[in-house]
Amino acid sequence: MLQTIGQRAKQAEPILRTLYTMEKNRALHQVAEDLLKKQDEILAANEVDVKAGKEAGLSEGLLDRLVLTPERIGDMSEGLRQLADLDDPIGEITAMKERPNGLLIGQKRVPLGVVGIIYEARPNVTADAFGLCFKTGNAVILKGGSYAIHSNRAIVSCIRGSLAKCQITEDAIQFIDDTSREVTTEFMKMDRYVDVLIPRGGAGLIQSVVKNSTIPVIETGTGNCHIYVDESADLEMAAAIVMNAKTQRVGVCNACESLLVHERSKNDLLPVLADLLKEKHVKIHGDERVMELIPWAVAATEEDWGKEYLDYEISIKVVDSLDEAIEHINRYNTKHSESIITNRYDHAQRFLNEIDAAAVYVNASTRFTDGYEFGYGAEIGISTQKLHVRGPMGLLALTTSKYIIYGNGQIRP
Amino acid sequence: MLQTIGQRAKQAEPILRTLYTMEKNRALHQVAEDLLKKQDEILAANEVDVKAGKEAGLSEGLLDRLVLTPERIGDMSEGLRQLADLDDPIGEITAMKERPNGLLIGQKRVPLGVVGIIYEARPNVTADAFGLCFKTGNAVILKGGSYAIHSNRAIVSCIRGSLAKCQITEDAIQFIDDTSREVTTEFMKMDRYVDVLIPRGGAGLIQSVVKNSTIPVIETGTGNCHIYVDESADLEMAAAIVMNAKTQRVGVCNACESLLVHERSKNDLLPVLADLLKEKHVKIHGDERVMELIPWAVAATEEDWGKEYLDYEISIKVVDSLDEAIEHINRYNTKHSESIITNRYDHAQRFLNEIDAAAVYVNASTRFTDGYEFGYGAEIGISTQKLHVRGPMGLLALTTSKYIIYGNGQIRP
Repeated sequence: MLQTIGQRAKQAEPILRTLYTMEKNRALHQVAEDLLKKQDEILAANEVDVKAGKEAGLSEGLLDRLVLTPERIGDMSEGLRQLADLDDPIGEITAMKERPNGLLIGQKRVPLGVVGIIYEARPNVTADAFGLCFKTGNAVILKGGSYAIHSNRAIVSCIRGSLAKCQITEDAIQFIDDTSREVTTEFMKMDRYVDVLIPRGGAGLIQSVVKNSTIPVIETGTGNCHIYVDESADLEMAAAIVMNAKTQRVGVCNACESLLVHERSKNDLLPVLADLLKEKHVKIHGDERVMELIPWAVAATEEDWGKEYLDYEISIKVVDSLDEAIEHINRYNTKHSESIITNRYDHAQRFLNEIDAAAVYVNASTRFTDGYEFGYGAEIGISTQKLHVRGPMGLLALTTSKYIIYGNGQIRP
Repeated sequence: MLQTIGQRAKQAEPILRTLYTMEKNRALHQVAEDLLKKQDEILAANEVDVKAGKEAGLSEGLLDRLVLTPERIGDMSEGLRQLADLDDPIGEITAMKERPNGLLIGQKRVPLGVVGIIYEARPNVTADAFGLCFKTGNAVILKGGSYAIHSNRAIVSCIRGSLAKCQITEDAIQFIDDTSREVTTEFMKMDRYVDVLIPRGGAGLIQSVVKNSTIPVIETGTGNCHIYVDESADLEMAAAIVMNAKTQRVGVCNACESLLVHERSKNDLLPVLADLLKEKHVKIHGDERVMELIPWAVAATEEDWGKEYLDYEISIKVVDSLDEAIEHINRYNTKHSESIITNRYDHAQRFLNEIDAAAVYVNASTRFTDGYEFGYGAEIGISTQKLHVRGPMGLLALTTSKYIIYGNGQIRP
């Protein structure tokens, strides 16, 4: 089955590569319309999934991600319309110059080709991922979580129907209708057909893909994000930023998971902050100096410093210097988002220069690391690796370039 | 041993990341000077390698790549001086804009971190790879071919000495002094310490790295490059370009390995071209229609269409249309360099749009796919993958970006 899917994607690739922007936008609008029209079918399929998920004892959080509502289908549809409105990066020639021998050399933005996406039981990702890949001229092969299988089938069938209406190959989107572990592992080895594999989900899924894939992978998502409150920080600002980064939404990769506080700020900040965190039922894992100030904190273990809680929990450590803070962060972070709260110019600059992460902030919440907040529109995830793309991945992340060279008989001397 | 090397590279990383351009350039000049001063030691070490290589029966081609001469050491030295003259991409901020909430967001060019390079018995790569990685603020871990072990030791020791003189951590360059297969495989799994792995060498080496590495890989090098001579081609130009691309240098990845000729051009082109190829002792693997015109050609097998000869051999096929040519090339090429010889505007445009490769040419030799020829200066190889960088890899390929964000208390609503 996978072989056939791979071959079909490869057949679709040259067709999609040369579609005009207006053809792609028309199809995106068609899908947006049809998702609303077929809402009842999609909701019925989703009900089957949700029922099975409840019986299997899925957590509240997972069930919440699985469930579709008319409003959520409306959001999926609206997301595709917004994608149609975004500029198409494909075809842009970013540099064109004449070389001394008369060769005219330019670099043209082109689709990656075939994109594979492995994700968990979140049916909205199905439409989002299709939209981003399609807008950038890529064929997409989706492998969704088993608990969303009926929802995904219904959404993919709807999208393929819309493509057929627009006389565009339905194989622009394909769906692996087998959620077994063996098939997933086989999928990760399909480097002959798939140009890039993007896992969207938790740390376990991502690590499994990185380890097993022979396809180039874009690593996304896990975020052990730190905030460091410096000696010179505005402590009211610091408390507001920590509260925002920790509690505005806890299950996301750009939430704050660990707080470092300078020795000279600890007495004024920690008791106040502890009360605010307590109000929100945030559990504190602290080092010794933190526990002296916050008696109800629990002792942090070595494991806590590296942990992405994705929950109402935070680790807190007191440090004696900026150097110690930078060293700690570069050691334990996942290269996602890090912030310093300071009023010292030199410390701000050193933090920006020396911290190794996709996004480094001064005096702002880590929660801004996001495609929309950065002004790029829809995103396919946050890259925490250094190759190809780093940080929020918008349409550009799904493209590559090729050199086009116009000659008139040049040979190499 | 590998563990220690990895840890040392990680310790060097933050130091190298924040070096000023002038410090890096001074060190490059120091290395360039010291390579010349220590020429005798390096040549003596190389002699040991060459002697062992001869005894082991290495081919002429491999021995030629292994051998060092005063002139070649001069080239290595001069290459480092040229690198010092190139602009340093590190630190450039490519976009800086104010978001509606007052956040100032920019994208800064930064080093990748730790670069691993696995290569064959070519001692000049040792100095080149160090220079490129060092100029871009990366620590480099080198794993060279066993036949060059003494030469590599001498070159690395010289470079580390120069770095020490400049008060820069010697661990900017480290060398795996064990060329066993087990150590090589272990090296490919060091994703904890190494940010990117670049194999430089033949198809076997590259495939082994792609299959076994858990570190992100930049695939380089193999080139099954085609030239398609269209129905409307200037046949004199076509013959000159084919001869250049096939015979100017045969052992390189941008040499032409396969020729497609339109049915209407075959009678006028092939007999003339065959004589030229014969003069250069090029063996022709042809399809039936080629063999009718060139009696001394041998029959091409299916395997020939996918083969990178790297030798005085070429496969030739007659096609009936541009469509057939494009389909054949997209099926058998290695996404490296492809050229059409034509006078038809529509065919040139279609070829540029529809061929999937790092470099697509009209009326020019594929031999131009090269960092210097494209105007970027020194290169670390030609990327044939689509992620991160495609085509000749200059200094930019060894960098990534990070978002730097200046706030004044922003939190996410």
